[in-house]
Amino acid sequence: MKPVKVGICGLGTVGGGTFNVLQRNAVEIARRAGRDIEVAQIAARHLNPACSLGATPVTDDVFEVVNNPEIDIVIELIGGYGVAREVVLQAIANGKHVVTANKALIAVHGNEIFAAASEKGVMVAFEASVAGGIPIIKAVREGLAANQIDWVAGIINGTGNFILTEMRDKGRTFDDVLAEAQALGYAEADPTFDVEGIDAAHKLTILASIAFGIPLQFDKAYTEGISKLTTADVRYAEAFGYRIKHLGIARRTSDGVELRVHPTLIPADRLIANVNGVMNAVMVNGDAVGSTLYYGAGAGAEATASSIVADIIDVVRTLTTDPNNRVPHLAFQAHSLSDLPVLPMGEVETAYYLRIQAKDRPGVLAKVASILSERGINIESILQKEAEEQDGLVPIIIMTHRVLEQKMNDAIDALEALDDIAGPLMRIRVEQLN
Amino acid sequence: MKPVKVGICGLGTVGGGTFNVLQRNAVEIARRAGRDIEVAQIAARHLNPACSLGATPVTDDVFEVVNNPEIDIVIELIGGYGVAREVVLQAIANGKHVVTANKALIAVHGNEIFAAASEKGVMVAFEASVAGGIPIIKAVREGLAANQIDWVAGIINGTGNFILTEMRDKGRTFDDVLAEAQALGYAEADPTFDVEGIDAAHKLTILASIAFGIPLQFDKAYTEGISKLTTADVRYAEAFGYRIKHLGIARRTSDGVELRVHPTLIPADRLIANVNGVMNAVMVNGDAVGSTLYYGAGAGAEATASSIVADIIDVVRTLTTDPNNRVPHLAFQAHSLSDLPVLPMGEVETAYYLRIQAKDRPGVLAKVASILSERGINIESILQKEAEEQDGLVPIIIMTHRVLEQKMNDAIDALEALDDIAGPLMRIRVEQLN
Repeated sequence: MKPVKVGICGLGTVGGGTFNVLQRNAVEIARRAGRDIEVAQIAARHLNPACSLGATPVTDDVFEVVNNPEIDIVIELIGGYGVAREVVLQAIANGKHVVTANKALIAVHGNEIFAAASEKGVMVAFEASVAGGIPIIKAVREGLAANQIDWVAGIINGTGNFILTEMRDKGRTFDDVLAEAQALGYAEADPTFDVEGIDAAHKLTILASIAFGIPLQFDKAYTEGISKLTTADVRYAEAFGYRIKHLGIARRTSDGVELRVHPTLIPADRLIANVNGVMNAVMVNGDAVGSTLYYGAGAGAEATASSIVADIIDVVRTLTTDPNNRVPHLAFQAHSLSDLPVLPMGEVETAYYLRIQAKDRPGVLAKVASILSERGINIESILQKEAEEQDGLVPIIIMTHRVLEQKMNDAIDALEALDDIAGPLMRIRVEQLN
Repeated sequence: MKPVKVGICGLGTVGGGTFNVLQRNAVEIARRAGRDIEVAQIAARHLNPACSLGATPVTDDVFEVVNNPEIDIVIELIGGYGVAREVVLQAIANGKHVVTANKALIAVHGNEIFAAASEKGVMVAFEASVAGGIPIIKAVREGLAANQIDWVAGIINGTGNFILTEMRDKGRTFDDVLAEAQALGYAEADPTFDVEGIDAAHKLTILASIAFGIPLQFDKAYTEGISKLTTADVRYAEAFGYRIKHLGIARRTSDGVELRVHPTLIPADRLIANVNGVMNAVMVNGDAVGSTLYYGAGAGAEATASSIVADIIDVVRTLTTDPNNRVPHLAFQAHSLSDLPVLPMGEVETAYYLRIQAKDRPGVLAKVASILSERGINIESILQKEAEEQDGLVPIIIMTHRVLEQKMNDAIDALEALDDIAGPLMRIRVEQLN
């Protein structure tokens, strides 16, 4: 059979990794796919010193690749929503299949892109957009297709997990570790996307859609970062037998879908609590299979390339399939997506860790307990420390049972209005993940 | 589109679970697959009280299902090599696709079965044959298809892992925990398949074939069980920072493929070292993706059914595909399987834990050290305990660097021949898995 021809748009870290994996493992890949995969053209503004391109044609115009009649599959590795969106839509309009690693593009413009692809009978594959090299899209969309999926919870941002791991293992502060992560190249100069949970929310939006069969709804995701976490919170969590991880959590309830990224206390003996450094892991719970977990590198040139090339092979394998018989983009047939709403955060039910800085006066604990109990919030355990030397404040740590977020918000407002409490309190959500 | 009709052969634990998942999640499954899946006939010697079969026709003759012209896909859940092999081959001969959970059948007769299936252009799917509900076949065969896979290492027998977990957590003996596992129904009355590693070797044989593109060669797998492990070994391993797991390990070297199941010391901080109880986990290391891990329930009615039904959906999706364009049974095109040999155990290189019971005489340690050093075996660390009260013997624990197994066998023969050593020594292989 004649080779399948792919065009790579973007030759940065991931583009370079993809080119190199396709070259180095060409024989292995052809032994699996049954056909050679040939890079027919590359669009790049700069050459990548990690790649020996040989005779591969290079252009600085991505649309040359997109409009190249020789090319069967366009690999979009530009990033962002601007040119990337045009490239993908034009490739689809030209009847080409698309492989992309662009989580922001899929999370924000995926519905439009998949509709266009279905119209033209082409595939848009996006395994590399979530959790780098971990084949999590395939696991959820195909491997667990027998299940009603109940929830998904993942460590899906390596930078954030590196920071939390260092804070716990070495007692370092958030700012200190972030500065190191930036120096090491793990974190961008503007770390907002990583540490404020936006990157994780992009990935979670995609996971929720393929798990529950709902359209992509990034704008409805709740996002809270890790920049306010202190080493004291990490220590107190430990004392209660928990670790703090920055999780993306999507859960189906009878009322709707929870879609939330926030720091989370999880029991220290859960496997996912032991996923450290820049590594990613995703738990998926289905009604038949129970809890499963998928672990690996969430970023990096070749780990991401591993998923991109797997997608290329998948596309190659289905080139002769009836388009109506392929794995649907969002796991469920487009006409049978569900209109289950995404719940506002106030309607989410979870347990809580609260850290209150109280003034050292008699009766404070009684006031705190009564504010909680008036709102139906049950305390599971409580830890009151001695007054800290510098400020004379007494940290009170409370773990609650599960309660609606809106009740907790109301309680927090009432607690912060107390004269006996100094400053805002710290609230971290708690999940058992069992 | 008209429903796809499946026939279930065997209505035991897994057969019952499969029927129930297909009924309960029928809507969810059809939303994914794009077609209804209908159980057209069941062959069972006994009804399963967990199933409400309704109007589903039942026969006690499996060949009625296999020869039923209405049925598109035969689900073989009989087990064993006898009737199961005939059922699968006859189904293939009749032009039907097959889904099976039968690891023994695939490991021992898979080459013959896949050749017959390719000849007839039908698929034989076997996700459920390895690690129950974990979609590990799909991950290796498709999700990591870009990689040259370097090694696979898995906890792929839940009974064995339950026993080892109890031995470590509670200091119980092997015999004690085995008796409990049998009472709980985790272990068979004849536990040989589980605790001697035969079941794990079946699964490892399958994993190695799809990872490296070699024919199935169960007869060449090295198998060693966990029945000789003592609580003392578990404690000493812990003191060195290791845990003992019963691993199936397949590794590709330039000389051939290692294929071995044995107790293994692994560093306690590895994620897989923290997989406890009856749970399974498989690590896969590829040249592009690095190390990945897949975790979940390795057995049980519905966890196994999760994989069987996912296979059914996969088969449904490829019903209209050109047979030459499907995912090959053993991941690589049948004509491009490799003849890389399976290495005899003597040619495997690994590190070792040795526990020697020495008589309390001067100079023993020097003799031991010199036997090892004469054979080029380097000691990494050593722990000599005080003489034990009962027998006056001194336990000497040695961790070695990596060395060829045949050199270690030779050293062990020489050590056991020493007058100063009591009884056979304990040897456990050590892997870093990084």
